[in-house]
Amino acid sequence: MRRGRHDAVTTQVNGGPHVVVIGGGFGGLTLVRELARARRRGRLRARITLVDRHNHHTFQPLLYQVATAGLQPQDVGISLRAILRRHGIEIRLGTVTGVDATRHVVTLSDGSELAYDRLVLAVGAITEDFGVPGVAEHAFGLKSLPEATTLRNELLRRFEEVSADRARSDDGTLTFVIAGGGPTGVELAGALAELVDLVVRRDHPTLDLERVRIVLVEPRAQLLGGFSARSGRAALDGLRRRGVDVRLGVGIAGVAADHVELTDGEVVPTRSVVWAAGVAASPLAAALGVELDRGRRVPVDDHLRVRGLDDVFAIGDLAAAIGADDRPLPQVAPVAIQQARHVARVLVDEAAGRPTRSFRYRDKGAMATIGRAAAVAELPGRVRLRGLVAWVAWLLLHLLMLVGFRNRVAVLLSWVWNYATYDHSARLILDQREAATAETARGPVPRSWAV
Amino acid sequence: MRRGRHDAVTTQVNGGPHVVVIGGGFGGLTLVRELARARRRGRLRARITLVDRHNHHTFQPLLYQVATAGLQPQDVGISLRAILRRHGIEIRLGTVTGVDATRHVVTLSDGSELAYDRLVLAVGAITEDFGVPGVAEHAFGLKSLPEATTLRNELLRRFEEVSADRARSDDGTLTFVIAGGGPTGVELAGALAELVDLVVRRDHPTLDLERVRIVLVEPRAQLLGGFSARSGRAALDGLRRRGVDVRLGVGIAGVAADHVELTDGEVVPTRSVVWAAGVAASPLAAALGVELDRGRRVPVDDHLRVRGLDDVFAIGDLAAAIGADDRPLPQVAPVAIQQARHVARVLVDEAAGRPTRSFRYRDKGAMATIGRAAAVAELPGRVRLRGLVAWVAWLLLHLLMLVGFRNRVAVLLSWVWNYATYDHSARLILDQREAATAETARGPVPRSWAV
Repeated sequence: MRRGRHDAVTTQVNGGPHVVVIGGGFGGLTLVRELARARRRGRLRARITLVDRHNHHTFQPLLYQVATAGLQPQDVGISLRAILRRHGIEIRLGTVTGVDATRHVVTLSDGSELAYDRLVLAVGAITEDFGVPGVAEHAFGLKSLPEATTLRNELLRRFEEVSADRARSDDGTLTFVIAGGGPTGVELAGALAELVDLVVRRDHPTLDLERVRIVLVEPRAQLLGGFSARSGRAALDGLRRRGVDVRLGVGIAGVAADHVELTDGEVVPTRSVVWAAGVAASPLAAALGVELDRGRRVPVDDHLRVRGLDDVFAIGDLAAAIGADDRPLPQVAPVAIQQARHVARVLVDEAAGRPTRSFRYRDKGAMATIGRAAAVAELPGRVRLRGLVAWVAWLLLHLLMLVGFRNRVAVLLSWVWNYATYDHSARLILDQREAATAETARGPVPRSWAV
Repeated sequence: MRRGRHDAVTTQVNGGPHVVVIGGGFGGLTLVRELARARRRGRLRARITLVDRHNHHTFQPLLYQVATAGLQPQDVGISLRAILRRHGIEIRLGTVTGVDATRHVVTLSDGSELAYDRLVLAVGAITEDFGVPGVAEHAFGLKSLPEATTLRNELLRRFEEVSADRARSDDGTLTFVIAGGGPTGVELAGALAELVDLVVRRDHPTLDLERVRIVLVEPRAQLLGGFSARSGRAALDGLRRRGVDVRLGVGIAGVAADHVELTDGEVVPTRSVVWAAGVAASPLAAALGVELDRGRRVPVDDHLRVRGLDDVFAIGDLAAAIGADDRPLPQVAPVAIQQARHVARVLVDEAAGRPTRSFRYRDKGAMATIGRAAAVAELPGRVRLRGLVAWVAWLLLHLLMLVGFRNRVAVLLSWVWNYATYDHSARLILDQREAATAETARGPVPRSWAV
């Protein structure tokens, strides 16, 4: 190819340690940007490499809106190379399978190795099934864009199946079970109820919506466990008003292809179970060879160094950091972001031969949206917001947290459109499977998932 | 679910024939909208059903921009239920496998049947491999959104592989072969060259772009066969200026997993072959039991009725309609759209007991874009445009042809953004395969492609 109008950014920085960051989520992304900034300001000399399984950062708080066709996948996924282009950070697409702290190398799933001087693990969490049988085989997760689009395709397909008379009224095709009454479960239940009420009602005029059941199952006595009882009740009222069948004090005993069994013995026919009941630290934690806590998280000291491993840090959902109340910090984005800033500070101070103050987490509160103009927010100083004001605060905060100007614009436009038209325009069933069968005479196996 | 603020649109129209349209492409979509309009105006009594394999209309002319990360999949895919919501048209998601013209039923892949009084086949075309070995197994098609996103994922992954040092310089990982120098091949080659020159150059600063090869293979002596020789030369110059290796008078003899063999004997190492060399009528044509033409298209009379079948029409890429020059009409959107309008007219006249004038195709010309501010256009009256003016005309025409206000806005914004920033922001690798493995402990098989 001829030379173009753009010159290559140099990513090699001679001298200084090689800092390898695993995971491009809130923690990892914040960290590499902080490090790059420090490097630009001459406060750090380092080669910085970010490794991620995906080529994009996923804005997980809005995945449920992708799953309910309110947002396009690309609205909440941002190319890592696009975000970090000007920061001179090396990016490596790959899955880390192990860490050899003695040799200072990480191993990737393709068998290759990557040497580091400082390693920061920010690989986040995976869906935790608590050993409930059938979850892994039959339930949908909601932790990545591919999971979100897969769920969206299935939800939309259920209504098509019924419209095509391929489902009996009692076979659970229109029953959607959401396991877990935390923010993810609550927000998904609310969004799904509105998808049915605002979109499916008009898309499938011959469909009897009385057949649609959305069941939200929460083992504890209140929704939004981390929130106040009042916020929990507000969420409960809001969801019930939207027709969601909320079951408190009930868990999932087992998931099968065509039904779920609840802990109270009830069997609910369904082919659509979403597992939002819990997360566990990435399996990578187990590969470290250090002793893990109950949530299989990695114990860290008050500078987020992994106990027992030199030059290895852990932040975010993976790290078992202890808060001021001596309890492990929650597995939420603000923790990961604050921990990322701390590790950046540690590495800069280390270069300057300065000590660093211990990490302390500042709780910024929590929010969850229930539906149109309905949300709950709990801010520091016992400030509690509900309804429209909480919803607007939620919208603004998420727009600010979202990475990338273009994505902010895209999400804002989608929200304005959806709100104004009562529509969810992202309701496309896009299965790459179809690429293998439908359009070509015999059809290639798309290599992207033939690996 | 409680009743919402929207009342169901009634889709059942008592009395009148049941008109079943197979295929929601340019032809089928135009037809059902024309019929619905005639029904609203009281000029037709009919029940109208549209059957499609996808739940969305695909704007095929822009698929190459999805494959090169210039547009989001949702920009060029529009929910059929969203478009047709207010038209009172029944929509059936399914694949038609056969037609029984004596019993007046179509059979679907799920085994169910659908009865019709009038049937219109608008199922379009599939990729034609002309019997070249390996095409079906190893080449990528570009006729649907799933194919386009699969191709995009693979193209982007190639550069990641090289950046991760998982490719030797001579193994063809950065060689992209496009078979076919028609509009699709030319537009894809130009867009891919710009993706490399404008985006990859900045995303992968350590990558030696001298290693990137884009080879466009066209058996005939000129590009854009349907166009004038001058336009063909303009496309040739434009692509070569962009670094595309254009091979005229050469075809593909065979495709393998790691190379292609050209008809001149040369073997080109590559794992990325895009087949844009030809289309053939849908396999459904063969299932009709009538004699087909060379392109396996369905012979129709001058009212687009399938010869030998009562009450069955065929339009678009599927139909072997003869033009004024006694040659079969090209398999392009304008033909399908004009034929759809004609069949609507026939059905309305039939209801009124009026005769209909025979179908005559009005050639509106042809356009192809080569890259930024570069295109060729040939309009009626031998009006030939090139360069910026042709490009602007191309942009405007495609915006107008695009269905759905929201999609027009989205595409326009994407184009403005890409043009202003020299960026292609849709470069996400989104494989649903990952949903099965990456994010959950053991991982469910996403049902969407486990069927």
